[in-house]
Amino acid sequence: MKPSIPQGFRDFNAGILHRRSYIINTIKEVFELYAFEPLETPAMENLETLMGKYGDEGDKLIFKVLNNGLDHSSKQENARQQFENILLGKTDKFITERALRYDLTIPFARFVAMNHAKLTMPYKRYQIQPVWRADRPQKGRYREFYQCDADVAGTYSLISDVEFCQIYSTVFSRLKLNVRIKINNRKILSALAEVCGIPEKMVAITGAIDKLEKIGLDKVKEELSQNDLTEKQIQIIVNYINIDGTNEEKLAKIEPLLLESETGREGIDELKFILEYSKKASNDQSLVLDFTLARGLNYYTGTIYEVTATDAKMGSIGGGGRYDDLAGLFGVTGVPGVGISFGLDRIYDVLEELNLFPESITHSPTALFFNMGEKESQFTFEIMQKCRTANIPCEMYFEPAKMNKQFKYATNKNIRYAIIIGSKEMESNRCEVKDLTSGDQSSLDMEELIPFLKKNNS
Amino acid sequence: MKPSIPQGFRDFNAGILHRRSYIINTIKEVFELYAFEPLETPAMENLETLMGKYGDEGDKLIFKVLNNGLDHSSKQENARQQFENILLGKTDKFITERALRYDLTIPFARFVAMNHAKLTMPYKRYQIQPVWRADRPQKGRYREFYQCDADVAGTYSLISDVEFCQIYSTVFSRLKLNVRIKINNRKILSALAEVCGIPEKMVAITGAIDKLEKIGLDKVKEELSQNDLTEKQIQIIVNYINIDGTNEEKLAKIEPLLLESETGREGIDELKFILEYSKKASNDQSLVLDFTLARGLNYYTGTIYEVTATDAKMGSIGGGGRYDDLAGLFGVTGVPGVGISFGLDRIYDVLEELNLFPESITHSPTALFFNMGEKESQFTFEIMQKCRTANIPCEMYFEPAKMNKQFKYATNKNIRYAIIIGSKEMESNRCEVKDLTSGDQSSLDMEELIPFLKKNNS
Repeated sequence: MKPSIPQGFRDFNAGILHRRSYIINTIKEVFELYAFEPLETPAMENLETLMGKYGDEGDKLIFKVLNNGLDHSSKQENARQQFENILLGKTDKFITERALRYDLTIPFARFVAMNHAKLTMPYKRYQIQPVWRADRPQKGRYREFYQCDADVAGTYSLISDVEFCQIYSTVFSRLKLNVRIKINNRKILSALAEVCGIPEKMVAITGAIDKLEKIGLDKVKEELSQNDLTEKQIQIIVNYINIDGTNEEKLAKIEPLLLESETGREGIDELKFILEYSKKASNDQSLVLDFTLARGLNYYTGTIYEVTATDAKMGSIGGGGRYDDLAGLFGVTGVPGVGISFGLDRIYDVLEELNLFPESITHSPTALFFNMGEKESQFTFEIMQKCRTANIPCEMYFEPAKMNKQFKYATNKNIRYAIIIGSKEMESNRCEVKDLTSGDQSSLDMEELIPFLKKNNS
Repeated sequence: MKPSIPQGFRDFNAGILHRRSYIINTIKEVFELYAFEPLETPAMENLETLMGKYGDEGDKLIFKVLNNGLDHSSKQENARQQFENILLGKTDKFITERALRYDLTIPFARFVAMNHAKLTMPYKRYQIQPVWRADRPQKGRYREFYQCDADVAGTYSLISDVEFCQIYSTVFSRLKLNVRIKINNRKILSALAEVCGIPEKMVAITGAIDKLEKIGLDKVKEELSQNDLTEKQIQIIVNYINIDGTNEEKLAKIEPLLLESETGREGIDELKFILEYSKKASNDQSLVLDFTLARGLNYYTGTIYEVTATDAKMGSIGGGGRYDDLAGLFGVTGVPGVGISFGLDRIYDVLEELNLFPESITHSPTALFFNMGEKESQFTFEIMQKCRTANIPCEMYFEPAKMNKQFKYATNKNIRYAIIIGSKEMESNRCEVKDLTSGDQSSLDMEELIPFLKKNNS
């Protein structure tokens, strides 16, 4: 049997993991700087916690876990009776009761609903864990991938919305990645449908606008027309889409358009608040008002965010927004939420493409001690243990192999120093140190070794 | 609907996660000090990768993932035809083809088998990831738990066995936990069966000895007798079990007992090598030879390890051993392996019980900026952002709530400094800083704030 892994899943070796850790640690440090605390939820949730939360398409992509013990006769009978219904997708309760986490937002909502009485509110949590989706695998789309989320539960304050803009800006500036942080407000999209006189068509309008970048203005107009919008209504939307200029100019231009809608004025005020706060808090120019930003998910009710890398062709590398009723799905009302997510895999690909990973992130051992024979290696082992006690990552080649082979091992593992202690060196209590980067070689007294490695161990 | 999580699964809040990270980071640092590199494998493996590797009992505890798209008619027909077989546990290939990782050793073996041509051998990897088992949940036993493993593939050198003793010793000494690192060698257990004249009963003998601590010597004798061992054979085993003294004394006593067995002499030589090397490498007294150590898993062929905490009642908190044929299950022969595992949950419980978690591991924000009103909070926000730019983790209360409420929030979140900037302070460009630990309060010039927090931000 030739071993393999399932389609859409990946092994991560050391080189990749160090790069992923660099991104994850950067995000985590900024989350903690902003006083978010970590949370981890289990890989499996009860099936009913997840089902019905991601739309019909989402439901189909949830990985369900088979119940154990189906070979017990009592459980078999139930499953047997229900089998047709199971196959028709009408029920699967006798064969599966649990499923793998599909995102981090629903488990967070479930956690808040379960623990809201004990939590210090507002509750600011971050969560960095894998999620699983039975999507068709393709380039850049996997069935197991990490999400990096931060959310605040329990405040309507827009200061938290401001902070999420700042978090995006800080993380990407630390990653040295130029980005555009686009913001909009769902209330403005609502108001647009309202001033068109068709508030009930907000989802259709939003859906069409959402595709603008992909399909272009003409196709958007076509789609709107197919949704029975009149010429006049479509013209209002085109005027809306065409709003341009600086953030301030855009705000000035949208005000007359949505003047009649109270929701619209609220949305504009909220955006103004966020932009004003943000401007005072930092000089960052990356925050861009974009009225065409819609975000697919329908649970957003206020501010929405989306981040793109300006120097790379790639979809959004982050997104989020405010939702008025976080835990309502689980019976706990009155807990608003706002949050953002970082797309780890895409950020990785962009940093790779733009060559933005720092050199220093690989953690190679500092030194390889050569194995020069039985007696020598025992002596060398003692010396090496002293280095490790001094916190210098290092190793000894396990077998007294040919020098070539040992050098090759060091080079493959990106180890900087080869340290050779043969019988001659044992007698004189010295060691040969070869810098495999520069080729320099020197003979050191054994007492000098640790200080030397410490000094050169960047 | 009242939300819940599945039995045997857990949410981890910040307090718990910081403690878990403390353990995980300690282990990880030592693994890297010993030049192990990280590996992560996917949560799901192909079913055939896992099945049949953990014995019949293990197979039953593997969580299988239901295939998606079972509501497509083509897939339904297959499943329908096989349904009886599925229920009888004879097959489930039409409804499940993937399963969740049950441990980290088999995925490691699968990875080595898939990549052995590309890997730099010997390959030293560590892996710290959750695993899932459908065990009956009980105190201290969960269905999702972390394993922390390090293994070397591709060397017969006993120096790697020595290093695993040193890794155990270093990790637990950094965690300030007193332990007993028990070692034995499977060859010695083989030899014991051999000198009893019943090599075919090695598994039964080992199984009985393995229970010694739990059931006592009399019951062990009983079990051996039930396995048709003669009085004389049982006496040899009792003599073996009764060997005591220092490591050196034990070695001296076992030699005559196993003299006739070549395997036995090999096992003794290997243990001698490990003990001698270890002694020269450190003064650690925790390495204890224990001939009654057997380890349940039958794939071990050489050195075996088990660690217990000396000051707590708790089963083993770590274990491992050498296995001659790591990747043979996946068609790649001639790759020996040796490795150890740390039991994160049990180590956590022991550190908790013995009160060994350092105070400093919780990452509370350094300061809470009070929200004193609309104008004040905007001014305060700017000051706070400067602190964050100076890398001081802090936050502002989102709403202009009563002072009491804001103080309570700070206390709940274990935040040390409350910083108050009211209209008076805004005018004088000063702030009030209250140390919530000591109760000290002082008025600082705004320029002094960052240096003050930096200095006191332990």
